[in-house]
Amino acid sequence: MKQFAEQYKLELLENVLPFWMKNSPDETYGGYFTCLERDGAVYDTDKFMWLQGRQVWLFSMLFDKVAPREEWRKLAEQGAAFMEKYGRDAAGNWYFSLTREGQPLTQPYNIFSDCFAAMGFGALYKIQPEQRYYDIAKDTFNNILERRNNPKGAYNKAFPGTRELKNFALPMILCNLSLELEHILGSETVNRFIPEVLHEVMDVFYQPDKGLILENVNADGSFSDSFEGRLINPGHTIEAMWFIMDLAVRLNRPELAEQAVAIALRTLEYGWDQEHGGIFYFMDVQGHPVQQLEWDQKLWWVHMETLVCLAKGYQITGNEACKTWFEKVHAYTWAHFKDQEHGEWFGYLTRQGQPLLSLKGGKWKGCFHVPRALYQVWQTLEKIAQLEPIAS
Amino acid sequence: MKQFAEQYKLELLENVLPFWMKNSPDETYGGYFTCLERDGAVYDTDKFMWLQGRQVWLFSMLFDKVAPREEWRKLAEQGAAFMEKYGRDAAGNWYFSLTREGQPLTQPYNIFSDCFAAMGFGALYKIQPEQRYYDIAKDTFNNILERRNNPKGAYNKAFPGTRELKNFALPMILCNLSLELEHILGSETVNRFIPEVLHEVMDVFYQPDKGLILENVNADGSFSDSFEGRLINPGHTIEAMWFIMDLAVRLNRPELAEQAVAIALRTLEYGWDQEHGGIFYFMDVQGHPVQQLEWDQKLWWVHMETLVCLAKGYQITGNEACKTWFEKVHAYTWAHFKDQEHGEWFGYLTRQGQPLLSLKGGKWKGCFHVPRALYQVWQTLEKIAQLEPIAS
Repeated sequence: MKQFAEQYKLELLENVLPFWMKNSPDETYGGYFTCLERDGAVYDTDKFMWLQGRQVWLFSMLFDKVAPREEWRKLAEQGAAFMEKYGRDAAGNWYFSLTREGQPLTQPYNIFSDCFAAMGFGALYKIQPEQRYYDIAKDTFNNILERRNNPKGAYNKAFPGTRELKNFALPMILCNLSLELEHILGSETVNRFIPEVLHEVMDVFYQPDKGLILENVNADGSFSDSFEGRLINPGHTIEAMWFIMDLAVRLNRPELAEQAVAIALRTLEYGWDQEHGGIFYFMDVQGHPVQQLEWDQKLWWVHMETLVCLAKGYQITGNEACKTWFEKVHAYTWAHFKDQEHGEWFGYLTRQGQPLLSLKGGKWKGCFHVPRALYQVWQTLEKIAQLEPIAS
Repeated sequence: MKQFAEQYKLELLENVLPFWMKNSPDETYGGYFTCLERDGAVYDTDKFMWLQGRQVWLFSMLFDKVAPREEWRKLAEQGAAFMEKYGRDAAGNWYFSLTREGQPLTQPYNIFSDCFAAMGFGALYKIQPEQRYYDIAKDTFNNILERRNNPKGAYNKAFPGTRELKNFALPMILCNLSLELEHILGSETVNRFIPEVLHEVMDVFYQPDKGLILENVNADGSFSDSFEGRLINPGHTIEAMWFIMDLAVRLNRPELAEQAVAIALRTLEYGWDQEHGGIFYFMDVQGHPVQQLEWDQKLWWVHMETLVCLAKGYQITGNEACKTWFEKVHAYTWAHFKDQEHGEWFGYLTRQGQPLLSLKGGKWKGCFHVPRALYQVWQTLEKIAQLEPIAS
């Protein structure tokens, strides 16, 4: 475990971070380029608020948790300055994307832009306690709460009343976001908030008969026999389970951590590709054809989040299956996603495990899952190396 | 050629049509199921107006052009009855999808639902000249023209004024739709209309320096260096080129047919997968990573439309490269898309040519491209077998 911890730490500090620090800052207009080729060359200059917010968060978090390096703080601040200046409409909603110069390109149809903006400004406030960072994080969080029952707003194409589905992604993100923003929201608010999102994830979206989490359920929580209702996203579930484990630690509820581990392991067995290795991107709970043509591809974030989940699961519960699976997923992930020639990791692999796209960053992949997971696994494995599991 | 003609005819009449006639009609609520498994079993009952309209068109067209079989007319009428009853909102826009029973599910955000509804009711009017079919086709066409400068309407997520792109799909479909609706719109209207859509396709979207058609250009026709602006969809271009050949015949302009053939052949060379065979789904004109994770997959409609284009190109211009390519694409398509065990053809293959999904129909694949292409190739090759090329 000590060796693994060292490997994740080195990869973070000496490969992945230097790649983003060198290639992503836009020195002319501010903010970050995220559309980076295999060697770091910028191939598109659009700026996606979702990814800008995540990068602000990442460098603020590193400054806070790893080392107070001035270059990290500066990088976080320069992204935040661009976001603050150009990122929101008059009502405080975050645009989905801007041009390189900061002109709005895509309307604020996507509430996850707001989630990651709040997360970024919240983390920045921790290392640079300026009132305006606090205000942006808090206002954005409140706006998310206001919008959360109809997150797509005017861009929602569902005809009202016929099949009102609710989606797993927002309650899942809110599990994590509420902890990330505790210093902004206050512990009392977070304490009131947690039971609600926990209930959504573990009672509403989790299906005990199947041992799986559905991506979409009817408004009343029942199963919707439709493309959306049958959808399983194993990576999403597994990522959510480490958010739940963090909540279990926060709440001192070991049985909740055990439950999260059980769901993660069940999902991993369900989603593992027996033929080629790796975890499928999308599945249909009834085994029907899915809508998503990319269903069989292997995505970086799915595998990175799984490593975090298994490391935490092992550290918190001592479940040996977490260790066995960690070694298996670790072997697959490092063999297939890590680029042996250039910095950062590939994002999208074919089912067979070959790179499908050469990019290191794009519209959906930025400076987030790879470094966050390397950090989380490093920290978690170091704890294991130092201590016995807290439960066994 | 005579042998090929017979092969396409038999496949249409004895394999593909029986599959849809047996499995797709919803005898209880009307309309068609299109989500059909490999063996024809219904796996989802939602009804997509786009695919309903296409199926009404197909069976009406067959009745008109192949044989006046009562079962074909009935099948067309039963789909139209469902569409007429449930398919539109109060303003006459066609919903994207309905439940099995006819409740609206997805708002009319997609103008191609309207295009295929107009096409379906127009064809049905030809074989069953009832005033209401005429009215629906005509009203829908006029509505498309009104909406065409902002086809997504309120669902358009682009921020106004920053990067106003126009998309190739609508002018392309209008090339075909205007001819399909000539008996409704009148020849004078169509004559006025054709030059405008021809200009869009051949002058605005076609890039003479590259010999390729872009999927999106700036409002002024210039190149947009963005994910959308760099996008090439080889199948779309090649399909459009047979629409242009039909217009060339209608206008008696052999040089236009020659130009369409040249663009189709250039696109085919550009889009052909040298390693595994077949035609890529999406490409970036500058060779950058594309957004679409399904970019390397081989789609049924791309290959079917290419066969139509090459057959017509050979018949109309006598260009021998069309014949050579036809034989090559024919060999690939029949070897990989045709299901040797069950009716209809697979829709989605991996880059290597294996079925990616077992479905024969879904949200986007219905009773349209396979039978239309089989019909078109059959008819075209029969003409070649009977006649010399009209130009050489």
